[in-house]
Amino acid sequence: MPVGESRHPSQSDAADEAQWVWAEIKAEARRDAESEPALASYLYSTILSHSSLDRSLSFHLGNKLCSSTLLSTLLYDLFLNAFSGDPDLRSAAVADLRAARSRDPACVSFSHCLLNYKGFLACQAHRVSHKLWTQSRKPLALALQSRISDVFAIDIHPGAKLGKGILFDHATGVVVGETAVIGDNVSMLHHVTLGGTGKAGGDRHPKIGDGVLIGAGATILGNVKIGAGAKIGAGSVVLIEVPPRATAVGNPARVVEGKEASKLDECPGMSMDHTSFISEWSDYTI
Amino acid sequence: MPVGESRHPSQSDAADEAQWVWAEIKAEARRDAESEPALASYLYSTILSHSSLDRSLSFHLGNKLCSSTLLSTLLYDLFLNAFSGDPDLRSAAVADLRAARSRDPACVSFSHCLLNYKGFLACQAHRVSHKLWTQSRKPLALALQSRISDVFAIDIHPGAKLGKGILFDHATGVVVGETAVIGDNVSMLHHVTLGGTGKAGGDRHPKIGDGVLIGAGATILGNVKIGAGAKIGAGSVVLIEVPPRATAVGNPARVVEGKEASKLDECPGMSMDHTSFISEWSDYTI
Amino acid sequence: MPVGESRHPSQSDAADEAQWVWAEIKAEARRDAESEPALASYLYSTILSHSSLDRSLSFHLGNKLCSSTLLSTLLYDLFLNAFSGDPDLRSAAVADLRAARSRDPACVSFSHCLLNYKGFLACQAHRVSHKLWTQSRKPLALALQSRISDVFAIDIHPGAKLGKGILFDHATGVVVGETAVIGDNVSMLHHVTLGGTGKAGGDRHPKIGDGVLIGAGATILGNVKIGAGAKIGAGSVVLIEVPPRATAVGNPARVVEGKEASKLDECPGMSMDHTSFISEWSDYTI
Amino acid sequence: MPVGESRHPSQSDAADEAQWVWAEIKAEARRDAESEPALASYLYSTILSHSSLDRSLSFHLGNKLCSSTLLSTLLYDLFLNAFSGDPDLRSAAVADLRAARSRDPACVSFSHCLLNYKGFLACQAHRVSHKLWTQSRKPLALALQSRISDVFAIDIHPGAKLGKGILFDHATGVVVGETAVIGDNVSMLHHVTLGGTGKAGGDRHPKIGDGVLIGAGATILGNVKIGAGAKIGAGSVVLIEVPPRATAVGNPARVVEGKEASKLDECPGMSMDHTSFISEWSDYTI
Amino acid sequence: MPVGESRHPSQSDAADEAQWVWAEIKAEARRDAESEPALASYLYSTILSHSSLDRSLSFHLGNKLCSSTLLSTLLYDLFLNAFSGDPDLRSAAVADLRAARSRDPACVSFSHCLLNYKGFLACQAHRVSHKLWTQSRKPLALALQSRISDVFAIDIHPGAKLGKGILFDHATGVVVGETAVIGDNVSMLHHVTLGGTGKAGGDRHPKIGDGVLIGAGATILGNVKIGAGAKIGAGSVVLIEVPPRATAVGNPARVVEGKEASKLDECPGMSMDHTSFISEWSDYTI
Amino acid sequence: MPVGESRHPSQSDAADEAQWVWAEIKAEARRDAESEPALASYLYSTILSHSSLDRSLSFHLGNKLCSSTLLSTLLYDLFLNAFSGDPDLRSAAVADLRAARSRDPACVSFSHCLLNYKGFLACQAHRVSHKLWTQSRKPLALALQSRISDVFAIDIHPGAKLGKGILFDHATGVVVGETAVIGDNVSMLHHVTLGGTGKAGGDRHPKIGDGVLIGAGATILGNVKIGAGAKIGAGSVVLIEVPPRATAVGNPARVVEGKEASKLDECPGMSMDHTSFISEWSDYTI
Repeated sequence: MPVGESRHPSQSDAADEAQWVWAEIKAEARRDAESEPALASYLYSTILSHSSLDRSLSFHLGNKLCSSTLLSTLLYDLFLNAFSGDPDLRSAAVADLRAARSRDPACVSFSHCLLNYKGFLACQAHRVSHKLWTQSRKPLALALQSRISDVFAIDIHPGAKLGKGILFDHATGVVVGETAVIGDNVSMLHHVTLGGTGKAGGDRHPKIGDGVLIGAGATILGNVKIGAGAKIGAGSVVLIEVPPRATAVGNPARVVEGKEASKLDECPGMSMDHTSFISEWSDYTI
Repeated sequence: MPVGESRHPSQSDAADEAQWVWAEIKAEARRDAESEPALASYLYSTILSHSSLDRSLSFHLGNKLCSSTLLSTLLYDLFLNAFSGDPDLRSAAVADLRAARSRDPACVSFSHCLLNYKGFLACQAHRVSHKLWTQSRKPLALALQSRISDVFAIDIHPGAKLGKGILFDHATGVVVGETAVIGDNVSMLHHVTLGGTGKAGGDRHPKIGDGVLIGAGATILGNVKIGAGAKIGAGSVVLIEVPPRATAVGNPARVVEGKEASKLDECPGMSMDHTSFISEWSDYTI
Repeated sequence: MPVGESRHPSQSDAADEAQWVWAEIKAEARRDAESEPALASYLYSTILSHSSLDRSLSFHLGNKLCSSTLLSTLLYDLFLNAFSGDPDLRSAAVADLRAARSRDPACVSFSHCLLNYKGFLACQAHRVSHKLWTQSRKPLALALQSRISDVFAIDIHPGAKLGKGILFDHATGVVVGETAVIGDNVSMLHHVTLGGTGKAGGDRHPKIGDGVLIGAGATILGNVKIGAGAKIGAGSVVLIEVPPRATAVGNPARVVEGKEASKLDECPGMSMDHTSFISEWSDYTI
Repeated sequence: MPVGESRHPSQSDAADEAQWVWAEIKAEARRDAESEPALASYLYSTILSHSSLDRSLSFHLGNKLCSSTLLSTLLYDLFLNAFSGDPDLRSAAVADLRAARSRDPACVSFSHCLLNYKGFLACQAHRVSHKLWTQSRKPLALALQSRISDVFAIDIHPGAKLGKGILFDHATGVVVGETAVIGDNVSMLHHVTLGGTGKAGGDRHPKIGDGVLIGAGATILGNVKIGAGAKIGAGSVVLIEVPPRATAVGNPARVVEGKEASKLDECPGMSMDHTSFISEWSDYTI
Repeated sequence: MPVGESRHPSQSDAADEAQWVWAEIKAEARRDAESEPALASYLYSTILSHSSLDRSLSFHLGNKLCSSTLLSTLLYDLFLNAFSGDPDLRSAAVADLRAARSRDPACVSFSHCLLNYKGFLACQAHRVSHKLWTQSRKPLALALQSRISDVFAIDIHPGAKLGKGILFDHATGVVVGETAVIGDNVSMLHHVTLGGTGKAGGDRHPKIGDGVLIGAGATILGNVKIGAGAKIGAGSVVLIEVPPRATAVGNPARVVEGKEASKLDECPGMSMDHTSFISEWSDYTI
Repeated sequence: MPVGESRHPSQSDAADEAQWVWAEIKAEARRDAESEPALASYLYSTILSHSSLDRSLSFHLGNKLCSSTLLSTLLYDLFLNAFSGDPDLRSAAVADLRAARSRDPACVSFSHCLLNYKGFLACQAHRVSHKLWTQSRKPLALALQSRISDVFAIDIHPGAKLGKGILFDHATGVVVGETAVIGDNVSMLHHVTLGGTGKAGGDRHPKIGDGVLIGAGATILGNVKIGAGAKIGAGSVVLIEVPPRATAVGNPARVVEGKEASKLDECPGMSMDHTSFISEWSDYTI
C-alpha cells in the first residue's frame, strides 16, 4: 500500500513536494509532542522549531555527527550551506523519506524516518560528503565519511554515487566503495557490502541499477552490474553480473530466476512502477 | 560449568535473586576499584554509588544512550520509573546477567556484563522500549530504539517480544523485527537478523523457541518457527521452519541433524536444563 | 604499488621510521589545513598541535573513546603512558599506517588513516588494552574493549594477540575472541569474526598466519590454523584448518586452490614479500 | 502591587499553594512555547515535560550545576530525593517564587524566575546543601556549594540558615558565611556580603531579621544583628548592630533614621505585611 | 596613543570599517596560530575558519553561551540571523572592538578582545537580546540574559539601551537595569551597577551620557542623568544627577569638580574627541 | 591555630612538604569517599586515581577550565607540563593550600581547598598563565586568563606577579591588573580590585607587600605600595601608599592606625610570623 499517498494532492514539482512532506512532518511531530510530553523537547529542537526541512535536517545531522573535535555548529553550517545551495539534495531527501514511508511497513511516519532512521541520515550526510568530494574538498569529505561510520556504523565512500528514493533499511554495517553507483529507488538492508577487488585499480565497485533490492548481509564485489529491478538474496556473495529483473542468491550467488528477465519489457520506466515492483519482490525486508 | 552457582544458596524468589546478584556486583566492583584506581571513579559512578540494581542500570543506560537532544536526566528518569514500576524488568535483567555469566566463558563477572556488554544493555533498554510500545507510547519507544541502534549498533524493534535469560553475545549488528518473538534462555551471537518478508503484512518475523542458539551472522527471515532447543549455524540463511532441538546450517539453511529432534523428549522443561543443553551445543560461541 | 615508498630513504630502525611517517603526517595535515579552513581546527587539535605521533594518537583516541563516565583526560593519560613506555606500540602503529597506505587504494594519505580509519584506531586502542590485560589490569582492559565496541562497533577481546602491519579495512562488525592470534601483515575486511566454539574451553579461537587476507563477512570459528599467506573468501564460514597460501571459500568453506600451497616455497619470509603477495591476491578488498 | 495575587483563590495550605504556582508556571511556559518556537524545546525540557515543581526544579538544577566530574544524573537524583523527602524545601521554593514575582518589577512571571534567576536557583540548591550539612554529609554539601559558586558566582556556606520568601536579586557576587542567619522575606541585591571576622571563632556572621532589605554591594561583617524590617543602603559597610526598621548607610555605615525604629510596633507579624513593608522601602531594587 | 590607527586608511563607511577590522583580526589570529600551535585549533575554530566577523562572533557566542538545554546550534542560528539581518549590530561590534583596542592598555589586539573579553561578548549578546525584546520576543530575550549572567557574571536587562563604542572592562559583576540607557563611547569597569529604586515604577534606571567613564564598583541608582563626559569614581554610590564633564566620587557621591562643567563648551561633538577625552580622564582603568 | 601542623614532622624541603600534603589529601579523600558514596566517583576522578598532586591539580583544572573550543585534554597537558617542569609551581600550590587551611576557619581540609576553592584554583591556573606570559606565549596566556575569568569570575592578568601562601577567600570578582605584584602570605577577600590608572602607562598597578590582608570589596588603584603586614578594610577605595603594618579604611581610604607602623620592628621575617600576624588582624575574613 502506497502509504501517505491518499491525502496527497497531485503536485507538479519538487519544491511543492518538499513543502508538502515538511508540512506532514510538522503535523506528525506536533501530534507526538502533544501525546508524549517527555519527547516534546526533542521534537521541538529537531523539527518544530525549524522553518524548513533543510534546517531541521542540518540541525539533526550536526548534532548527531558532531564530536569534541568537530563541533556541531561547524557541521550545522556545512550541512545548511549544502542543502540551501543545492535543491537536488533536498529533493533527494524527500524521495528517500517517501521511499522509507512507502516501502518499509515498520515506518510509521515521515518524522519517524527523519529522526530515527540511521540509514536515511547517513544517506543525506553522504550526499553532502559526495558533493564536497566532487568539489575536490576531499579531506573534509573523508572526515565526514569517518563520522558517519563512527556514529551510524555505515561506511559509504564519498566518491560513491547514489540515486534518489534510496532505502537503507536498518542500515548497520552497510559498506559502499568509492566507485560504486546506486540507481534510483534502490532498497538495501543492513550489512550489505558493495565492495571492490584489489586486482582491479580504478573503477572497481558494483553498479546497482534502478529499483534493485538487496537482502540483508549480501556482499557484491567488483565492477559488476546488477541490472534494473534485480533482486539479491540475503546473505548472497555476488561476483557476477546479474541481469535486469533477475534474482541472484547463494554463496557464491547464482541467478535463480532467469525467466524473470523476460519480465523486463513489462517494467515501466517511471519510478512509481519501480516502487510497486519492489513491493512485489521485497521478500527480505524486515 | 554453571559459573557463580556454587556460592549461591537456594533462593525462593526473584527479589532475593536480584538482591544476591546486586550484592555480588557491588563486591566485584569494590574489588576492582581497589585494584585499579584509574577505574574507581567509573565504578563508583556506575555501580558503587547506587543503592540498587535498578538505579545502577538506569544511570548507566541514561548516560550511554543520551545525546545532545535527549538528555541523560530524561532517560535516567524514564528508565528508573520503568524498572521501579515493573519487577519483571528487574528479574529479566537478573536472568540475563546470569545467562552471560554462565554461558559465556569470556564473561568474568556479573559487573563485567552489567558495565560492558552492549548486548545486555541493549536488551534491557529494549525491554523498556517494548513496555512503552505496549502502552501506546510509540514515538518515545521508537526514539529509544533509534538511540540503541546508534550507540550499540543493535536494532530491535520495540514491538519484538523477548523472554528472559537472553544472551546477545558481542551483539554488534543484531537486527530483530517488529513481530519477532524470542523465547527464554535464547543465546545469539552478533550480526544475527530476525527479519521479515515484504510480501507478508502483519505477523512477518521469526518465532524463536526457548533455549535456541543462533550462530554469528545467521539470517532468519519470515514468520518461521525455530523450535525449542534448536541450533542455527553461523552464517546460515534460514527461510524455513526448524524443528525443536534440530540444527540448521548453510545458505540456504537445511536441517542437518533431524535425528536430534528425537532427543526432545529427554529435554526437561526447566530453564536450567535448557541452559545446560545450550552449553552442550554452543559450538559457535566465542 | 608500494605507496609512500619512493621518497622514503632507507632507514635503519623503527624510531627513524616513526619520525619519517610523523613528518609525512604533519606535512599532509598542514597541506589539508591550508586548503580547507573548515577542517583546520580539527587538524590542529588532532595532529598539528602535537609534538609526536604518540601524543597525537593518545589525544585522538582519548577524545574518540571517552564517555561521560570515562573522561578524555583519563584515557589520554592512559594511552600516553602506554605509548611512551613501550616503543613496540609505536612501531606497530607505524606498521599499521603503512599497511593501510600501501594496501588500500582508498587510503589517500597517512593522516587519512590516522584520523579516519576506525579499524586503525580500534587496533591501536586494542594494543593498549592487551598490554593492560597481560599486566593483570583486566577490569580496565575490559572497559576499554567495551568503549571500542561502542564507538567503533569493533569487538576485540583484550586477550587477543595481534601482529604488526594489520589492516582492518572498513572494520565495522569485526569480532576477535580472547585466544585468537593474528600474525603480521594480515588484512581483513569488515564483519569478520574470529570466534570460538563453546565445547572447547581454554584455547578456542583461530590462529591467523602472517600475510593472510580475510574477505568481508567471513566467519572463522574454533582453534583452527589459517596458514601464512592464505586467503579466506568473503562470506565464508571456516571451521577447518587452511594450509598456507591456500584459499578457502564458501559456507561451509572448502579449500579451493590446493595447488596454491605449492607456491609456499616461493614465498619469501620478508614482510615486503608478504605485502606484495597480498596485493596479488587481494580480490576482496574494497 | 502584589503581582499574581488577583487570580489567586484563598488556599489553606502549602501543598495547594505549590499546586497553584506550578499550574501557573505550566500555563506561562505553554504560552511562551507557542509564541516562541525557538524556545519551545527548552521550555518542554525544563518545565512542560515534568509532572511537578520538584521534578522541574531538580532537572533544571541538575543540568545547571553538573560538570564533567559531577554528572547531571547524580545531581538530579540528589535534588529530587531532597525535594521529595522534605515538603519544607518545596514550600520555601514557592515562597521565593512569590517573593520575586511580587517584589521585583522586572520579574514578568513565575517561570521567568524559575528558569532565569540565578539567585533563586542558587537559593534552592543551597537549601539542599544546607540539609546535607545538617545531616553531617559535609563533603557533599561543600561540593555543592562549590558548584553553585562556579556556576552562579554566588557563594553561600552550607551552614548558613535561610528563611522563606528570600529574594536574591541579580545575585552575582553574593557571599554568605557559615554562621549567618537570614530571616523570612529578606531581599538582597547583588554583591552583598554577610561576612565574618577572623578574631571571633564560632558564631561569627551576621543575623539578618525578617523583612530586611540589603542594597547592592553592601558588606555586613561580624556577628551583628540587623533588626527586622531594617534597610541597608547600597555600598554600605556595616560593622554594627542595626535596630529593627532602621536604615543604615555609608562606609562605615551609621544608622540614619533611628526614628524608624519606633515604627516597629506598627509592623504586623504576617508575612504579607513584611512584603508590603519592603515595597515601601525598596529604594535600591533594580 | 590611538592604537591600531596608524595603518588604517581613511574609510568612508561602516562596511569598510568592518572589513578592515576583520582583516586585522584574521591577520592577528594567523600570526598567533603560527607562533602557538597549542592554540591554533582554537583560533581556527573561532576565527580563521570563518568568512566574516558575523559568523565568527555568532560561532563564538553560540559556543560560549550554550548549555545542555540551549544548544549551540540554536544559539548560533539566532546570533547569525540577528547579525546578518541588522548592519547596526555589526557596526556596533566594530566600534566596541575599537573602543577596547584604543582605550584599554591591556588589550593587545582586536582578536584578543573578540575572543577573550567577556564584557565585549556580553555586550554583543545583549544587543541581540535587546533586539528580541523590542520585537516582543521577551521569553527568548530573558533566556539569553540569563545565559549571559550565568556564563559571564554580567547581568544586563534586555530592555536596556546601549550606544556604540562601549567598553566593559573586566566586566564581572556588571548589572544594568531595564530602563537604563548608555550613550556612545562609554567606558565602565567591573562591578558597576546601573540600578533602579523600588519606589519609582516605570522609567527607573540611570541614563548615562556619551563618553562617560564609570570606575570599578560604582553604584548608580535611580532615574538619574549622568551628563556627557562625566566621570564616576570607583566605589562611588551615586543617587544624584551628575552634570556633563563633572566628576562624582564617594559614598554617597558628591560632585567634586563642578568647575569641570565649564569645560563642556570645549568638548567637540565628534566621537573621537570623546575618546581622547576619556583617555585624559581614565584614572581608574586597569 | 596552625591547623594540621601537629602531626607534621619538621621537614627540610618543599618536596617533602608536598609529599606530606598530598598524603593528607589522599587520606581525607579516602575518608570522604567511604562516608559519602555519592561523592566517591568525584573524589576518585579528581584525587584518588592520581599519583601526585601535580596530576590531580592538572586534571581538575583541565576539566574545570575546558570549553567546547579548548578541550580538557589540551589544558590537562598544558598544566601537567607546567607543573612537572617547574617545582616552584608545586611548592607555591602547597603553600597556598596551607594558607587556606590555617587562615580560613571555614576550610575543613586540604582536599576541601583543592577541590572547591575557586580562589585557589584560579591562583594555580594563573601561575601557569604567568609562566607562559614570561615565555612570550602571550596569546595562550591570555586565553587562559579568559577561561579563568569565565569559569571562576576571577580576572588576573597573566603579567601579574604573585608570591606564595596566597589566600583568595571566596574570590568571586577579584580583578588584578597587569603590573600588580602580590607578596607572600597575602590574604584577600572577594571583589578586591588591584587596578591601574589610565594616566600612567607602563607600571600602573598596586604593589602589595608580604602578609597584607585586604577586605572584601576593597579597590586599590594605581602604582601604590601597600606595606608589608598592612591591612585594607572592606569596601575601601585606596589611592595612596599605605605604610607597613598600617590599616587603611574608608572611601577614599585613610590610614587609621599609623601607630601600628611602629610594630614593624617586631615583625619577624619568617612566614609563620606573618601568618600569626594576619590571624591577629583578620577582622574581615568570613
